[in-house]
Amino acid sequence: MTARMVGVLSPVVTPFAADLSPDPGRFVRHCKWLLAHGCAGLAVFGTNSEANSLSVDERMELLEALVAKGVPPDRLMPGTGCSALPDSVRLTAHAVKLGCAGVLVLPPFYYKGVADDGLYRSYSEIIQRVGDPRLRVYLYHIPQVSGVPISVGLIGRLLATFPDTIAGIKDSSNDWKNTQQLLDAFLGTGFAVFTGSETFLLQNLRAGGVGCITAGANVNPHGIDAVYRNWQTAKADQLQSGANAIRGALQSVPMIPALKAVIAHYAEDAAWETVRPPFTGLASSQHHQLLAQLGALDFAMPDIKA
Amino acid sequence: MTARMVGVLSPVVTPFAADLSPDPGRFVRHCKWLLAHGCAGLAVFGTNSEANSLSVDERMELLEALVAKGVPPDRLMPGTGCSALPDSVRLTAHAVKLGCAGVLVLPPFYYKGVADDGLYRSYSEIIQRVGDPRLRVYLYHIPQVSGVPISVGLIGRLLATFPDTIAGIKDSSNDWKNTQQLLDAFLGTGFAVFTGSETFLLQNLRAGGVGCITAGANVNPHGIDAVYRNWQTAKADQLQSGANAIRGALQSVPMIPALKAVIAHYAEDAAWETVRPPFTGLASSQHHQLLAQLGALDFAMPDIKA
Repeated sequence: MTARMVGVLSPVVTPFAADLSPDPGRFVRHCKWLLAHGCAGLAVFGTNSEANSLSVDERMELLEALVAKGVPPDRLMPGTGCSALPDSVRLTAHAVKLGCAGVLVLPPFYYKGVADDGLYRSYSEIIQRVGDPRLRVYLYHIPQVSGVPISVGLIGRLLATFPDTIAGIKDSSNDWKNTQQLLDAFLGTGFAVFTGSETFLLQNLRAGGVGCITAGANVNPHGIDAVYRNWQTAKADQLQSGANAIRGALQSVPMIPALKAVIAHYAEDAAWETVRPPFTGLASSQHHQLLAQLGALDFAMPDIKA
Repeated sequence: MTARMVGVLSPVVTPFAADLSPDPGRFVRHCKWLLAHGCAGLAVFGTNSEANSLSVDERMELLEALVAKGVPPDRLMPGTGCSALPDSVRLTAHAVKLGCAGVLVLPPFYYKGVADDGLYRSYSEIIQRVGDPRLRVYLYHIPQVSGVPISVGLIGRLLATFPDTIAGIKDSSNDWKNTQQLLDAFLGTGFAVFTGSETFLLQNLRAGGVGCITAGANVNPHGIDAVYRNWQTAKADQLQSGANAIRGALQSVPMIPALKAVIAHYAEDAAWETVRPPFTGLASSQHHQLLAQLGALDFAMPDIKA
């Protein structure tokens, strides 16, 4: 059985060329930087990766580029949940075949108000069609974006049928009560609970969770990993406060262009600022405000320059 | 310049085989039945087509099957708006190449709360990358499902830049005030306003709209077309009431499995009941209730048996 992932994971931002095509070179470089600076794993193709603006083929090509360039697949948890069942099956099977440690699976997110029976059927079809005992599914709960919540009842049913496959959840609800309910329901079963923001990391670890999968880890992996490594020490709360301050600056403006603007600035590589529609780059006032806030926090990205 | 579509269009339900693969044979047959029984056009791959549960390749193969089997492309308005830009571009270019009269384009629907600038950029990229003067884009406003509304301001900007390409809208908000705002803003410009339900058809025609694109037309194309053909006669309100009663029965249970159950029943072809996840078939109590209501309305689907 594959070792389950714990610690700090980054939903890696996806760099684009000026023509909006994915840029595998910068992507590989950033993934390696993240692993060298505190990330235990890479949840590539998450929400903050603009993954839902990528085609299935683009995702597969980028994942193959990572593995070909030496990023260890046992550190990878690609997002593979799409609106259409065949897309989710194709991406999930591809990730397992490449040896990825797990996959992060959104529910089908176009249709709203569907019954848990239908969501159960969706995850069940993916697992059965992939049909590989190495598959480890992490559920992705982000109802404010997907519009499709993953209930405790649904998780219980999936765990009962697929106890070796359903490995955990990313709870991006930003609602600690939901995270606590998940821990109450499944602690001790091996079901791994990650929060979707570093702001809940210490709270999650103290309550039995295993880490966080967070946008902020794209630029502050070292600071967030410090909370993880020191969570049982006297420094824990202070380290958490430091990570929170940086998160606060990032989320004072739209998150995806913010992450890219920060990387572009500290790497001195303006190409990083490109976002795909439906996003747009930061307004210059937002750009200025963000960098000023980070500067006031003595924020740094060590060794990020190419 | 391509003639613009008017009248009653059906977002055609997509039949699946038992293994959940698309069934082109039943699809072609149903499309031909719809055109023979009152539909002016076919908005294949709409919300009620489970289109967002189909891969890009599946949609392209089904569209090719229609054209190969003699469904006239100038009666087709396939849905081509996806979450990912390259998917929308690929489907749109394919539809134009096949000679489709228009395309119905959802905004990218995963990311929520995006600015109109980003949605403008999204439609603009699709139009420019397809780069074909034959392209006619119908915008698809269904905020309660997509989570991404299309504002009057956005439409105005798109029309100003692409006056020959932006051809109209399907307003599925089920909010007459929104439809009226669209008519107020764009009546006289040639911009075609379709409602997303037959219940607003007569009201829309009287206010200057051109028709409806409605799930109900999958089973009641003749009844809805009768409203369209007679809207300026004394019978109009009575015909609208009749169409409304059938719509009321259909939407008393989940719409997509309802449409498929009705076709299966009247065509005596149980294979039509299959739905893809995240949907499930009707519960037997819902099935019974739906058919009883339609029976009480003397509902019929002439010539539907294979």
